[in-house]
Amino acid sequence: MERVVPDSAKSGASEPEQYCWTEREAELLTVTLRLLQSHGYDRLTVDAVATEAKASKATMYRRWPSKADLVLAAFIEGTRESAVAPNTGSLREDLIAIGTSVAAHSREHASTMRAVLNEMSHSADLRAAMQDKFVRHRHTMMEEVLATAAARGEIGTDAINPEIWDVLPGYLVFRSLMSDRPPTDETVRMLVDEVVLPALQRTRT
Amino acid sequence: MERVVPDSAKSGASEPEQYCWTEREAELLTVTLRLLQSHGYDRLTVDAVATEAKASKATMYRRWPSKADLVLAAFIEGTRESAVAPNTGSLREDLIAIGTSVAAHSREHASTMRAVLNEMSHSADLRAAMQDKFVRHRHTMMEEVLATAAARGEIGTDAINPEIWDVLPGYLVFRSLMSDRPPTDETVRMLVDEVVLPALQRTRT
Repeated sequence: MERVVPDSAKSGASEPEQYCWTEREAELLTVTLRLLQSHGYDRLTVDAVATEAKASKATMYRRWPSKADLVLAAFIEGTRESAVAPNTGSLREDLIAIGTSVAAHSREHASTMRAVLNEMSHSADLRAAMQDKFVRHRHTMMEEVLATAAARGEIGTDAINPEIWDVLPGYLVFRSLMSDRPPTDETVRMLVDEVVLPALQRTRT
Repeated sequence: MERVVPDSAKSGASEPEQYCWTEREAELLTVTLRLLQSHGYDRLTVDAVATEAKASKATMYRRWPSKADLVLAAFIEGTRESAVAPNTGSLREDLIAIGTSVAAHSREHASTMRAVLNEMSHSADLRAAMQDKFVRHRHTMMEEVLATAAARGEIGTDAINPEIWDVLPGYLVFRSLMSDRPPTDETVRMLVDEVVLPALQRTRT
């Protein structure tokens, strides 16, 4: 239970009070994630999580007003360990580390992510939560990795394009969720070596 | 109604008998798409489409056994006009044309695509249909554009990487479906000029 204080709270990437949960809440999210993976989103109920985790339904609903809120929180909890920016000393290795982690998590949670996405069509709150608690943090992480690489002189600062900063994670998520070819280590390697790195190094001066 | 014989049938990219529909069927799919955009996937019923289009329910269910089948067919019908490979004489312009079309369609049909994706989690048939009737055709189109560019000497044939051929459409679909930043013309331009083209031209000999 050492992952209770998320790194985004430390780095200030989102409001700590929204992002932190107690050990007990983290436990409930772990149970949610386990049930999600065995039953899928549609067959998951908040009540089943409460029963499985021996928690009161009131506790569950107070913290997560809807199934979609609960599932989004569980999804974020599930990706928590990959929420620290890698710092290997080499841009290529950092990008491979980010890509490998995104590919693994999006493969593992593909059906949950599809279900959450579908819910997002109907809920502005859920869209805002995904944005605040997940996307913004990932953006900060990528900025950190690129700024470090620029400081080392591996890329020019003008290579960092805020419009398309998420080509690496975005394409890998696409492959996990929408294609019938989930990304492999080889996908990550080719994407980094043949697409992302050449684009970043193109403007090096 | 000139789009009844799809180009994939002409090019042999998928089985014509599965991909072709009659004028009346194309009409039913157009109605489906219109209702999808006004009502969304969850509130759409096959019966409502039958009523709106003055068709018998039996006709509908004989052709499309489930709502998911109907919606997938309508989605494919909706992207039909962009199913012809561009041939502008320049790789950059061809890629911009593909990107612009993918961005427009995925923005327009984002919530339908999210719903279909979620259904795909539960249905191997739907996954196979999406693969056969959509992805494979798009792959053929991209191969055509790249082969033409290689023949013109714009890129080396070794630049064509079958593992990551879909970075351009994949990232744009990701942006439409999963981010809160739907892709713009500027997104397409930057993606082509700063990522996809440099990657393809990198190995030019």
